[in-house]
Parts: sequence; C-alpha cells; structure tokens
Amino acid sequence: MKKGINQYQIGDNIELYLLIKNAKKGTASNGKPFLTLHMSDQTGEIEAKLWSISPDDENTFVSSSIVHVQGEIQDFRGMRQLKIKAIRPTTSMDQVKLADYLPTAPLDPSEMLERVTQYIFEMENAKIQRITRHLLKKHQQAFLESPAATKNHHEYVSGLAYHVVSMLELAKSITTLYPSLDKDLLYAGVILHDLGKVRELAGPIVAKYTLEGNLLGHISIIVTEIQEAAKELEIDSEEVLILQHLVLSHHGKGEWGSPKVPVVREAEILHMIDNIDAKMNMMDRALERVPPGEFSERVFAMDNRSFYKPTFHEPPIDI
Amino acid sequence: MKKGINQYQIGDNIELYLLIKNAKKGTASNGKPFLTLHMSDQTGEIEAKLWSISPDDENTFVSSSIVHVQGEIQDFRGMRQLKIKAIRPTTSMDQVKLADYLPTAPLDPSEMLERVTQYIFEMENAKIQRITRHLLKKHQQAFLESPAATKNHHEYVSGLAYHVVSMLELAKSITTLYPSLDKDLLYAGVILHDLGKVRELAGPIVAKYTLEGNLLGHISIIVTEIQEAAKELEIDSEEVLILQHLVLSHHGKGEWGSPKVPVVREAEILHMIDNIDAKMNMMDRALERVPPGEFSERVFAMDNRSFYKPTFHEPPIDI
Amino acid sequence: MKKGINQYQIGDNIELYLLIKNAKKGTASNGKPFLTLHMSDQTGEIEAKLWSISPDDENTFVSSSIVHVQGEIQDFRGMRQLKIKAIRPTTSMDQVKLADYLPTAPLDPSEMLERVTQYIFEMENAKIQRITRHLLKKHQQAFLESPAATKNHHEYVSGLAYHVVSMLELAKSITTLYPSLDKDLLYAGVILHDLGKVRELAGPIVAKYTLEGNLLGHISIIVTEIQEAAKELEIDSEEVLILQHLVLSHHGKGEWGSPKVPVVREAEILHMIDNIDAKMNMMDRALERVPPGEFSERVFAMDNRSFYKPTFHEPPIDI
Amino acid sequence: MKKGINQYQIGDNIELYLLIKNAKKGTASNGKPFLTLHMSDQTGEIEAKLWSISPDDENTFVSSSIVHVQGEIQDFRGMRQLKIKAIRPTTSMDQVKLADYLPTAPLDPSEMLERVTQYIFEMENAKIQRITRHLLKKHQQAFLESPAATKNHHEYVSGLAYHVVSMLELAKSITTLYPSLDKDLLYAGVILHDLGKVRELAGPIVAKYTLEGNLLGHISIIVTEIQEAAKELEIDSEEVLILQHLVLSHHGKGEWGSPKVPVVREAEILHMIDNIDAKMNMMDRALERVPPGEFSERVFAMDNRSFYKPTFHEPPIDI
Amino acid sequence: MKKGINQYQIGDNIELYLLIKNAKKGTASNGKPFLTLHMSDQTGEIEAKLWSISPDDENTFVSSSIVHVQGEIQDFRGMRQLKIKAIRPTTSMDQVKLADYLPTAPLDPSEMLERVTQYIFEMENAKIQRITRHLLKKHQQAFLESPAATKNHHEYVSGLAYHVVSMLELAKSITTLYPSLDKDLLYAGVILHDLGKVRELAGPIVAKYTLEGNLLGHISIIVTEIQEAAKELEIDSEEVLILQHLVLSHHGKGEWGSPKVPVVREAEILHMIDNIDAKMNMMDRALERVPPGEFSERVFAMDNRSFYKPTFHEPPIDI
Amino acid sequence: MKKGINQYQIGDNIELYLLIKNAKKGTASNGKPFLTLHMSDQTGEIEAKLWSISPDDENTFVSSSIVHVQGEIQDFRGMRQLKIKAIRPTTSMDQVKLADYLPTAPLDPSEMLERVTQYIFEMENAKIQRITRHLLKKHQQAFLESPAATKNHHEYVSGLAYHVVSMLELAKSITTLYPSLDKDLLYAGVILHDLGKVRELAGPIVAKYTLEGNLLGHISIIVTEIQEAAKELEIDSEEVLILQHLVLSHHGKGEWGSPKVPVVREAEILHMIDNIDAKMNMMDRALERVPPGEFSERVFAMDNRSFYKPTFHEPPIDI
Repeated sequence: MKKGINQYQIGDNIELYLLIKNAKKGTASNGKPFLTLHMSDQTGEIEAKLWSISPDDENTFVSSSIVHVQGEIQDFRGMRQLKIKAIRPTTSMDQVKLADYLPTAPLDPSEMLERVTQYIFEMENAKIQRITRHLLKKHQQAFLESPAATKNHHEYVSGLAYHVVSMLELAKSITTLYPSLDKDLLYAGVILHDLGKVRELAGPIVAKYTLEGNLLGHISIIVTEIQEAAKELEIDSEEVLILQHLVLSHHGKGEWGSPKVPVVREAEILHMIDNIDAKMNMMDRALERVPPGEFSERVFAMDNRSFYKPTFHEPPIDI
Repeated sequence: MKKGINQYQIGDNIELYLLIKNAKKGTASNGKPFLTLHMSDQTGEIEAKLWSISPDDENTFVSSSIVHVQGEIQDFRGMRQLKIKAIRPTTSMDQVKLADYLPTAPLDPSEMLERVTQYIFEMENAKIQRITRHLLKKHQQAFLESPAATKNHHEYVSGLAYHVVSMLELAKSITTLYPSLDKDLLYAGVILHDLGKVRELAGPIVAKYTLEGNLLGHISIIVTEIQEAAKELEIDSEEVLILQHLVLSHHGKGEWGSPKVPVVREAEILHMIDNIDAKMNMMDRALERVPPGEFSERVFAMDNRSFYKPTFHEPPIDI
Repeated sequence: MKKGINQYQIGDNIELYLLIKNAKKGTASNGKPFLTLHMSDQTGEIEAKLWSISPDDENTFVSSSIVHVQGEIQDFRGMRQLKIKAIRPTTSMDQVKLADYLPTAPLDPSEMLERVTQYIFEMENAKIQRITRHLLKKHQQAFLESPAATKNHHEYVSGLAYHVVSMLELAKSITTLYPSLDKDLLYAGVILHDLGKVRELAGPIVAKYTLEGNLLGHISIIVTEIQEAAKELEIDSEEVLILQHLVLSHHGKGEWGSPKVPVVREAEILHMIDNIDAKMNMMDRALERVPPGEFSERVFAMDNRSFYKPTFHEPPIDI
Repeated sequence: MKKGINQYQIGDNIELYLLIKNAKKGTASNGKPFLTLHMSDQTGEIEAKLWSISPDDENTFVSSSIVHVQGEIQDFRGMRQLKIKAIRPTTSMDQVKLADYLPTAPLDPSEMLERVTQYIFEMENAKIQRITRHLLKKHQQAFLESPAATKNHHEYVSGLAYHVVSMLELAKSITTLYPSLDKDLLYAGVILHDLGKVRELAGPIVAKYTLEGNLLGHISIIVTEIQEAAKELEIDSEEVLILQHLVLSHHGKGEWGSPKVPVVREAEILHMIDNIDAKMNMMDRALERVPPGEFSERVFAMDNRSFYKPTFHEPPIDI
Repeated sequence: MKKGINQYQIGDNIELYLLIKNAKKGTASNGKPFLTLHMSDQTGEIEAKLWSISPDDENTFVSSSIVHVQGEIQDFRGMRQLKIKAIRPTTSMDQVKLADYLPTAPLDPSEMLERVTQYIFEMENAKIQRITRHLLKKHQQAFLESPAATKNHHEYVSGLAYHVVSMLELAKSITTLYPSLDKDLLYAGVILHDLGKVRELAGPIVAKYTLEGNLLGHISIIVTEIQEAAKELEIDSEEVLILQHLVLSHHGKGEWGSPKVPVVREAEILHMIDNIDAKMNMMDRALERVPPGEFSERVFAMDNRSFYKPTFHEPPIDI
Repeated sequence: MKKGINQYQIGDNIELYLLIKNAKKGTASNGKPFLTLHMSDQTGEIEAKLWSISPDDENTFVSSSIVHVQGEIQDFRGMRQLKIKAIRPTTSMDQVKLADYLPTAPLDPSEMLERVTQYIFEMENAKIQRITRHLLKKHQQAFLESPAATKNHHEYVSGLAYHVVSMLELAKSITTLYPSLDKDLLYAGVILHDLGKVRELAGPIVAKYTLEGNLLGHISIIVTEIQEAAKELEIDSEEVLILQHLVLSHHGKGEWGSPKVPVVREAEILHMIDNIDAKMNMMDRALERVPPGEFSERVFAMDNRSFYKPTFHEPPIDI
C-alpha cells in the first residue's frame, strides 16, 4: 500500500494527492486573506495554511476538490501541520477519484454488513431479532456509510458500522464469560445504540449535525423509531421497552447525555463496551505514529491526556 | 368548610375521619409488630404509628380504608406526627366516602379542562393546535386525575392539571411582557411537558412509577407520542420537531434529567415557568401552617431549606 | 429610524458614523502596530481591526471619538467583525454628538423613573416604602444612567433602570397569580437588588469595576446602605432585615455570589425574576439578527449555547 | 483538678454532677415517652437517654438544671453515650453552681482581653487601630463570653475570644516569617473576622442562630458595623474598605460562604490562619481521649475523617 | 447441593445452621440490650436482631460461632432480615465446621492458582514474567484466601483470586480483539493490581483494614513491593516503571483513589476490565434472587440503583 | 545590586544581558519564521518575540546562550512582554557567565543546608532522625539545586531547598503554639515531602518532567525510598509507616493528587504549611512590581485571581 499522510513524521517532506475536506477563509494579521485547509487521504488528516491567496485561489481550492501538494510537516503547538510549498488543482489527467481520499473504515462495507447480519441471524428471541433487522434494513445504506461521530472517534466513512462490528465482537466474548447476560439483548443494543446517528449527522464529506440532530439527538430519534417499528411489526411486549431503555441509557449518566441511567444488566454493559471501543480507537490513533519511548499528542476526549509508548513496544511501520 | 388535618398545630388534640393512604408493618425494638400509617383528608397528610398491633388490627387498618381517629399532634424531628389515642374502622353508618379524603387540587376538573381548552382554542398556529388538542383528548381523563409527581410538589389528585393551569397563566403574562415569545409554542409546551406522567405514574391513591416510567421516563414517552400524533394527523413540519424539543429540554440540563439543553427561546422559558410554579407550590405548603416570626419545616426538594415567615405577614387561618 | 450597525448582516457593505468605545493597540505578527476598535451606535456594537497604523492614527482613533467608516461585515469565528475600507475622524461639520452613538435602553429615563415611582407609590407598607424611596432618591441620577452589568445583559446606558422596570412588571403579574407573595417586599427587592451597581461600576462610556466594586461587590454595598437609610429614617423593625436578606440572597447560591441562600418566599422569587429578565435580554439580542431556520451566535453567559429561530417565526426587520 | 466527664472511657462507671444543657422529649417505639439529655461539665459533653419517664421527671430534668448522675459510659455507633443508672436533681445542699458545669475556654476572659488589647496597642496604623478598638469596645462583654460557633470548633463559653487569641499568636509568627505582610491589617482582620457572631448567635447555655444570624450572617453584620464605626470616627480612607474586604473574604470561596474571594494578601492569609486554628482545635479534641495506636471518633467538619494517634505518642492523662 | 440462606425469599420460614460473622450489642429503645447478628453460610449473608438478651446470651452468641436457627425472612426497608424464632449454640454433636459456613469463591483455590500460573507461563517478556511470578509466590497463600474488598464486590474467602481469574479471561479476549495491546503487561497488571490487599486487609472471618491499609493503601504498598522485587531480581528496566504505573493508575482518577491517571494504553484498559468484573459481580448478586418482572435491592456502590430483571429472562433456581 | 529584568515596568526601555532559557520556532501569519524567547536574569523572566528570523538567527539564539538585548517592555494581554529593538550574541569579551543569569533562591545553598541539618540535629526521635538524615544525604546535591516545581512557585535554582527552609521555620512556630504536635514528625515531613522532585524533575536550565516523574510522580517515588532507607537502616517500626503517610497525604485530597487523605495530625498541618508557603511565594512575586493602588497580573495557580496592593502599602523599590 502506498504511504499516506498519516505515516509521515514532523520534519518529513511530502509530495501527495490530498482531498480538501474543508476550506475556510480568514484574514491574516497583515490584513491579507488566507485559507485554512483540512486535507485528507484514506490514512488520515492534516491541517495546512495557504497564505496571501488571490481571488482565483479562493475559487480553486474549495471543499471536496483533490489537489496535488508539496510541503513539509511541521509542529504547531504539539499538533502536526503541513507547510505548503507548492499546490495545484488536479485535472482528469491526474486520474484521481474522491472516494480514494476520504478516511474510511479498515473493513469493507459488504464484509461489515455480513458480520452484523450474522449476529442478527444468531438471535434466539424472535421479537428482538425482528425489530433489530427491521431497523437495520430501513437504514442499511446510511448505516454502512455514516461516521460514528463528527470528531474524537470513528469519525470517518463507515465509522459507525466499524464501531458496531468491533463492539459486537467484544459483546460476544463478554457474554461468553458472564453467562447471566442476555446475548440477544446486548447484540441488539449494540446494533441500535447509535443508529440514530444516520439522522443526527449528515454530509458526504464532513459530517455535521442536522436540525433534528441538534434539537432531538440520536438517542431520542431511535427510541421513537423502535416504537414505530414495533407497531408496524405488531410486537407489543416488554422486549420493545427494554430495547428502548438500552438505547436511552447507553451514555451512562444524565450529565453524559443519557436520559435514563442503566437499570438493566445489559444496559450497563452496553455502556462499558461502547466506552472501551471508543477509547481503544482514540488511543490507537494517537499512538500510531509515536516511536517507542515517547508521548503522543494530547487526546482531547480522554481528559486531554498524552499517552506513552513504552520503549519495549513496537515502533510504528516506516520509522 | 370543616377544619382538616392540615389546619391543626403541634399540641392540638384532634378527632377526625381520615383515609389510610398507606399502611406498612414493622417490628418495634421490643420485638412487637406495629403499623406506620400515612393518613390524609383533603387538606393534607400526616404520619402516625400504631403500636403493638394484633393480627386483627393488621387486617383492619389497611390502605384505602377510612378510619375514625382521636389523638394528639406531636413534633417528631421537626415534622408533625399524630399520636393515636383511639382508632376504629368506619362502617356504612359513618356515611364517609373515599373521594372526600384524598388531597386534591383546589380547582374542579371540569373548570380546569375548560381553561386548558380555552388556551388551545386561542392558538393561531393550526399545526401546534391540532397536535396539542389531539394528545390532550387522547389522555383527557388521566390528565384530569393524575398527580404531577409522586412527592415534593402537586402530588395529589388532579395535581397535573392544576400545575398546567397555573403555568398557562404564568405563560400568558410572560408572553405579554416579552413579545418575542411565541405564545402558541409556549402554551403547547406547558400542556404537553408533563403529559407523559399519565403513563409514568399509576395508582388511584398513592402514585407509583410504572415499569415504562422507570425505564423510559415521562419525557421519552411523550416525545414518541408527539411523533405518532403528527403521523396520524399527517403533519410533517418543523412544528413537530420544536414541540418535541420543548418537552425534551424542559428539565434544563442533563444532570437534571433533560436529554437536551434548551436551544429555542420558548424551551428555556418553559423550564423557568415550570420551576417557579413548582417552587411556589412547595413554599406555600411549607409556610401554610407557620405563624409569623417562625421558620417552616425543611423543604427537601429546595436544598433542604427552612423558610421564614416575616412577623409583618398574615398568620394562617385558625391560629 | 435610520438603520444602525446592528441591523446589518454578514456580507453587507456599510457606511456609517460610529463611536469608538474602546481602542487597544497591539503588535501584529509581522511586527507592525494595529488597533482593535470596539465601535457602536445606539443599535449595538461591532469589533474591527485597523492594520498597520501610523503614530498619527494612534492619536486620532481614540476612545470616545466618533468616526466615519466604510467597510464590509465579515464572519470571524462565528462572530461579526467589521473589515474597515475607509475611516476618518469627524469634525464639527459632521454634526454628530456622542450621546447619539451610545447603545442605550429603549425607554426614556424620565419614563422609567415615572414607572418605578408609581410602583413605590402603590406600596402599602410604609416602612418598606420609605426605605426604598430614600435609597432611590439618593442614587436617582446614577440609577437612571448606569448599565446593569459590564457585559452579558443590559450593559448599556440606562440598562439598570430598564432591567428594574421589566422586572417590576414581571413581579406585578406573578404577585397577581400567587397571592401569598408580599408585593411591597418583592417590588422593593426588585428596585434595590442591583442598586449597589451605581457604586460597583463606573465610567461614562465603558463601565468598569471600581475598587469598592472589586473588594466589596454591589451586594454588600447596598446592604450597608439599607442599614444607614433605616437609621436615618429611624426605622428599626423586621422590614429592614428582610429587605437586606432579599438583596443578600438574590444570586441564589453561594457559588453564584450570594452571601446567603434565600429563606424568604419573596427572596426566592426575586432570584427567579432576575434570571428570567436577564435571559430574555440575552436571547432576544442573540436572535435579533438571525433569519428563521438558523442558529444564533453562542451566548457565553448561557452555558455558551446557540439558539435556534424556528422557520415559522418572523424574520428580523430589514431582511 | 477533679476528673471530668471527658476523661472517662467507654466501660467506665461514673458518679458526677452534670449540667443538663438540653433536654428533648421523644416517644420510644414501645409508645412510652423518654428524654434525650445533653449533659456537660467543664471538660466536655455527653449524651444520655432517660427511658420511660413520668410527667414529674419531665418537669424535673430540664435544660439548665444540674443533676447528680450514676451510670456507665457505653459505645453507641462509634460515639460515647452515658447509660444512666441513677439520676436526681440537686438542691442547695449540693452546693453546685451553673458556671462550673459549662465547657469553657482554657484561658481567663480578663487574660484574653489583655492579650487582644496588647495586639491593638502595638498597631502602627492609627486608622486600623481606632476602628478595631472601637468595635472591640462596643462588643467587649459579648466578645469575651460568646462561643466561636454552635458546633464543630470552639463551641463553648469564651470560645470566640480564645479562637481570636490563638489566631493572633499564629498571625504574629507568620508576619515575622513573611515580612511583606502588613501585621496591623492581619491583626485587625483576626480580631474582627468573627465579631459578627456576637449578634449571629445567642443563648447563655446552648448557642442558637438569631433571626439576623439566619438572614444576614455574621459576615454582613460586621461589614455594616465597620462602615458605621468609620463614619462615627470620621475615618474615610482605604483602610476601611480593606478591613471590610478581609472580613467579607475570610471563608475563602463563594461555596464556603464568602461573598468575595480574597484579593488582598492579608485576606488570603487570614483565611488560612482561621483554618489552621479551627482544625487544630477539632483534631486535638478528637484525639484527647484516644490511646496511642488507635483511631479517634469521626470528625464531621473534617470530611468525616478519623484520626490516628501513633503508638510512639503520649497516652492521654488518666489512662 | 443443600439450599442455603441466599436461596430463601421474603416470607419463607427457615431452619438452618449459620455462622455468626459479627455480633454487636445495642440498647433497645425500651432500655434492654439486644444483639445485631450478621450470619452467613456459603451462599451468602443475612442480618438478624436478637431481642432482650441475657448476659448468658451475650457470651454464647459471639463472632465465629455456629448456631442453629429457626425463623422467618422479612423485609426491612427493602433489605432481607431474619426474624429469629429459636436459636441455639451448636456442639460437637452437630458436626458442623466453620469453613463450611463462610461465603467463598465458586472456584477451588488450587484450580485458580493453576489458571493464574498458566497466564504467567504464557508471558513472553521475561522481565514482566519474573516480577509477577516473584510477587505472586511471595504472597501466594494470602492471595488465595483474601477477599477482594471489605464490602460491595468479591468480599468473601478467595474473592481476590476469583476477581483476578475473571479479569484475566476478560483481558485475554480483549487483547485478542485489539492487537495493539501488550498482553504480558495487561496480564501482569491484572495479577498485581490488587495484590496489596493481602496487606491492606486482615482477619479470617470479617476483613478489616490494617493500620498500613489505612495509612498507605494497597496501591502504595504493592508499588513499593514491585521496586523491592526488581532490586532483588536485579531487573532495572522500563518494565518495572510501567508495571508500577499500571498499579498506581488502576482506579482511573485522583478522586477515585488513583495517585496517577493512566497514560499507558494497558493502564486504561486495566481500569476498565476491573470495573466490568466488579460491576458484573454486584449486578449478578443483586439479581440472583429476583424473579422476572421485578427490581432488585439497591446496589450502594452503583449509585444506589435498583436493577430490573425482564419478564422474558430466567427465574432464579428454586422459585 | 544592579537592576534586573524584574525591576522594569511597562513602558521602560532596557539594555541588558539576558539568558535565553528557551527558544521555540514558529511560523507567523505572513508565512515567515519567528522565535519565541523566554529570557531571564537572576531577578526573573520575560517573554519576547524575534520576528522574521534568518536561518543564522535560528542557530545563534538558542537555549542556554546569553545575549545582549535592547528593547522596550510592553503590555500583552495583561502580561509583560519585551519588544526587541536590538539583539546580539555575547562573546568571551562580554565576560558573562550562565550561573549569573538563572533565577535562583535568595539564600546560599550552604546556608540552607546548614539550617536543614540543624533541624535534623534537634530531633529527639532517633528513628525519624536517621531516616531523614539518610535520605537528605543520599540526594543532598540535587536537593540543593532542584527547583520546587516547573512553574507557579519556587520554580528556580535551589527553589526546593528554599521552600523547605521556609516551611521548617513555619513548622517551628506552629509546633510552639500547638504543643500537641510532634515536631520531629512535622520537620521530617517538611524535609521529605517534595524530595521525590529530585527524580521527578530534571534539566539544568528549564526543569522538565522525567519519565518516572510522569508515570509515578514524586510522591510514590519517595514513599518507596523511605521503605528502602528503613530496610537499609534496619528500622522496622511505626515511624516508617507514619512518615510514608505524611508524604502520601500532603496534597490533602485525591483530586489534588494525594493517594491518601491525612489521618494523622501532623499530616494535616504539613499540608497547610505547604499551602501557606507556596501561596506567599506566588502572591509576593505577583505584587513585587505593583505600585500601591493597583492590581497584579493574574495568578494562575490561585484561581486566576489578581491581587490588590493597598495605597497605604510600600511601593516597590525603584518606582
């Protein structure tokens, strides 16, 4: 695989095709306009500044365009930043396509769909199974494309599906170790817990909150959909209520955004599995480029901690 | 009007018919069984202990029965307690009926319904009006009977309707003073904000949490019902979303039980009106029996404060 | 009325007289000096940068001077900022005067004084009436000119009086709805609660904290003045104490700056009325320029929330 | 000195004269009345229960009477309690007097007055000196008799004066070590900081909050008195303001009851000296009766901690 | 297996041998002495009161003795309590032995030792392996007998070893799912994290804090021992430091008792695994006796929540 | 003594030799590189920017070099900043040496060592004395050179020793006033409490956290060393445990970094003495340059407060 933007260190010179995910105009302190560019390929993202731009530049280097860039990776307050030395728009001659430059989940959507479907197939409680299958089917396309968040963790194409698949595997080993857990309930909780994000977030390249995302949130959105699904499927039993509770309580506490605290065993464990997978994702990405014996960038959503990679651990590839 | 249990002071001797709302058996430290009775008439409640009971007593003095009691009101750790001197069950000869002994709102249900209906009638936005009317009609009977809570404030028959009527009047004067507020939205928010309590709470005499009350809560319950109502009425516009947001955010913050913080002007004001009416209800009841120049019992839901009645204020009736 | 700075949107070109409320020199990252200007007219304020200034500019564009400006309104991190294209000082030829360019309350001082006086006139408790009238008279001029705060809400000329007048009207409707409230006490509390600000804050154009403001605060200042007034008027009764308590507790909690928590009914309600009026002021200003279907700037003093204006609400004038 | 109630351990039998500081009637779970007695001599206090009392007993064993008691000291949930075996009222024959049975400061009032006066005498700033002397003189008698609190620390006769004397000595050594501190200001702050307690608390035997104590608090009370003293002495300079600030901020933070946080060096140090003296008083009393190698009772006002007395420390007298 | 105390419901009559784990004398409100007994067999514990005891009873029914009891299980404030109808001490004729009546882990110590040893055997990093093996060997006997806590979770004989074995299995599946984790480090962290409890707690029947437990805590105790082990084994490499960090940070935050927050990936995961195993243990025990469709007792260490067992889940054995 | 950087005010022009403690390259918003320099002499520090640097400049103006600077002191967001007008490297001709330009404690290391040694000499408990002497000797050189922190207070050469000497004198006067305190224990606690900093921090010019500082912290480091010292000295008594507890608890609470809360009298007082000395150091430095009647810069570690210097206090030297 070709080396991508995320594999380069501070001090490296790069020459790459990159996608402009977001371009924002500002005025420098000398009064001249400049652009702040968030650029990505499939391995990750980097920020760059394009100084003293012309009106032409402003119309050329826009969101969703792919550019060819030469530059150097520098340190800016503990974060990587790309110093642009040369930049040009691409043409059909460059033979690049957008999908190749969006950060994306390491698994293929069809592979992820197959795995999730297999978990649903194995469920023994038919009511839980039918509701879960119904809602997954309803949002299948969006589920396979949506990120799991706008930032912090799994914030890339298919991030939601990848987060769900990881959590399902974690759920499987935990239900094996603690047989008092109802695996159907836990699997369904995992599949549905963030499904409201397909309506909370929108945008092909950079995910943003929709109006109903802002005013209702993904939790209330899917709780209502579970109710509608049950009505449509003519299921009127406690399973519906318990599934709604799992979703409602999966943030754990009121101050963390949970309308209800977990009062069902599987609801508590769903919250913890969600936490482990999100934290592993954040720590792995922070430590990915860090050589043994050094500290990572600060991870904002983990109390702004820096993580240390012990000297007896593996260096990252390409160092 | 005949003097009720709430009008008596510590030291008074009473002779009254009272309803046993709740009877709970315990074992005294001398090993003998006793009953803790919560007894009420329409003016309020009092706790009493019935010592050294026989198995017969246990079967006689049960929840929902009306008894004739003689006793003295005493102080127990800053709360009133009734010391029972004589107690007997009532018979048809006593000509008493249950409804006369439940604490209840000071307004008649039909009067309250008329007032709420009038507010709905005055709405100019037809979508908001239709959804509100639809849901009120759906739960009309329960709305008129339900308490607004299990404890703290408006926890009596028709307490919910009374809380809503008071809040509507407050909403009316506030929208007059601040013309930027949308009165239709605020009135609808007031009427719907606690309507989920008709499913969250149950029980003719003492309100208790239902299973869906415990697992979903009144907020999520009614948010889903607004969705269903809109579908049934074929209303698919932003009003639906905003009404759901008002309900979702009316507790103000995550740690106070709100899935979302208010981000619409009327949502913020709904939260404050709810607060004022609940606090006035709690302070008024705490100060009702307090003579000028003295402090009230502690009010648990208001940070456990005692309130002072200035000497230049009116004494309570019957002092 | 002529269109003012607050009526313009991002993207608009303006040509206006504006007052420089504050001018602060900085050094740009290219080493050259620049000025940060806070400029206002009666409709509101805007920030601007004047780049690469000469020593002459520094002496010309100073606080309290009125200038003629041409420029464009731009977005800077979600706030409006004025990009200056041309700026010149004004002369007597321009026929402008300072008072016309200070943001100011929407009511006339004499009108506000009349209203407050009427509330005092209606009081029935002579002791409360005399103390309130005495202190208002003592600080009458400053009361009519002072802002209610240095930032966040009512931070303009006559802001204090306007805040008090709004709160009095709110107090009137609440005492009508809840007859257990003592209206004299609540009116007096409203009039006195922030009166210490006339000594806490100072400055004709931009309000700043005085030394006694910093070291004692407006609450302690006026509590002492109530004591002195009572002595001078030879009033020695519980009313004095209760008025002091209302002022002392009107921030609600120790961590919000209240030396005492409210333990008198009117003290609790004073705190809530204060809150409602301040929040309505902040939300109204934030939403004033926002078109339906969009979110406002963040409101710092309301947990940094953005507020949404529903699509079915009125657009601002001039859009 | 005769052995007092505080020198006895759990398991000891006692025969002593004790003062009833407080007697409170209750109803036992067998329905019979009993008294909870808080009894003291000059060494300390103990709680006891007097079971199955007659109406006569109720009238005999009242607050402020001295009784002769035989009993055994027992453990009740980690606190000492006196099990009464025999109790009788005293007569003139017993030759006991109330003052001998109230817990009291270890120094003589005249001695404490002399020391405080000496500190005032040594002040070099005449304004600070005159205000301090004026207020001390105004409240001299109450200052010498008042406790420093109703519970937790120095809650005995002359406790306030003793607390002030200890703090003055601490202030003296700290100003010697840190010469940047203004000793006049710090001494005055120490003398005045709690002087409002002479009006906040009342009662010859058990201190209780007065109405102005509850509604204003000792801090606001003395801040107003400093203002009045300054006016009377015709002192109108910054010293008045700074002294008021020291009192206003001596609890350190809003949530600990301080209207203002300390922003003057001596104000910060006053807060810390107050803390040290209060904590030493609480720890010393908790550890007084504890043998080496054991833990004390829990100290409520120090986060409910138990303190350990190392085995290499001195045992208490009389063990 | 014979039915034990934990398998009985409220309302059941029992006749069982039980161990008195703890006996505490009190005085009833009628003045008579009584005993509060905590009694157990291997299935669990229950509290009982023995009223109006004689001095003989007090000497007979002491901690660590086994008794024969007849009684009824009753509800006391939402907790089970045993009402004793008949109780007698046991003699050699009863053929009972203490070990059979202590609640104990469901696995055999030798079995648990074997499993832990296997995990150590599989380690590839020799330094981590040697330190872990050294410390386990040093405390092997105590490790196999000690509870994991004095209350809340795994507070029974061999509770520590059982907690470690469960966590090791959880660690194994998590390291399989997230290959970036160092399994040697995580296993060693699991084995050592609570090993200091063998010195923090003591007592064959009821675990209590030792002096060094109170003053140093199990975390500091084992951190020092890791240092000593490394010195003895002549290991002076970063592994020592990282192992100490894992132990130091395994409570996650300062306010939860962690001297350091986790800054190594495995330290964060160790904290989460510890949490999951403790919570599963608490929820399982709370729900063990609960029939489907009901709520459990409140679980103090999980924010005092009650947990619900869905109606479609299995009833407990013996219902 | 020659006037140093800390004696100059905003607006002053300076011409001084200064040490570059730290030089950090950045990119200005015009795209050109610049240096942020932290420069010091023995009186204090100042920040400066060097704009538009050449590659030569970058290699010349590096950490640990001494430069000759001309410039003006300006205000930047309430902090002093040096505007460089001319800067040149120094040569042997300038006759300057590094040690003269590092901020350093006001007492000589040998003088401080003598004082600490005297306190150890006066100890009566031989075990405490031997452990303290042993550890001081082991780290003597580093103890005399180390700062007490990386920022906030005593963050200069020999800052640790100076902090300890001040605290010892404070400890001496407090033990005199409160005779229940064990002075040996308190002195030893003072000497050892921060001694772990000699391993937590490193670096001759700017102190930085070492790896063991980051992962273990100075508290755990020295607790382990006390254990090792005791073993080496063959002391096995409670004194070892108590000394470890004093160190472990000297930050007061878990959320302030204390593994244990203080449960020994001297531990609580050690925490308070540490606080007083650190706060006096911060306030004195903040107020050093402030003229009477003005407020200081904000002090970050004291809740970001500004401190006021009363008009009746002394102006700083050289104003």
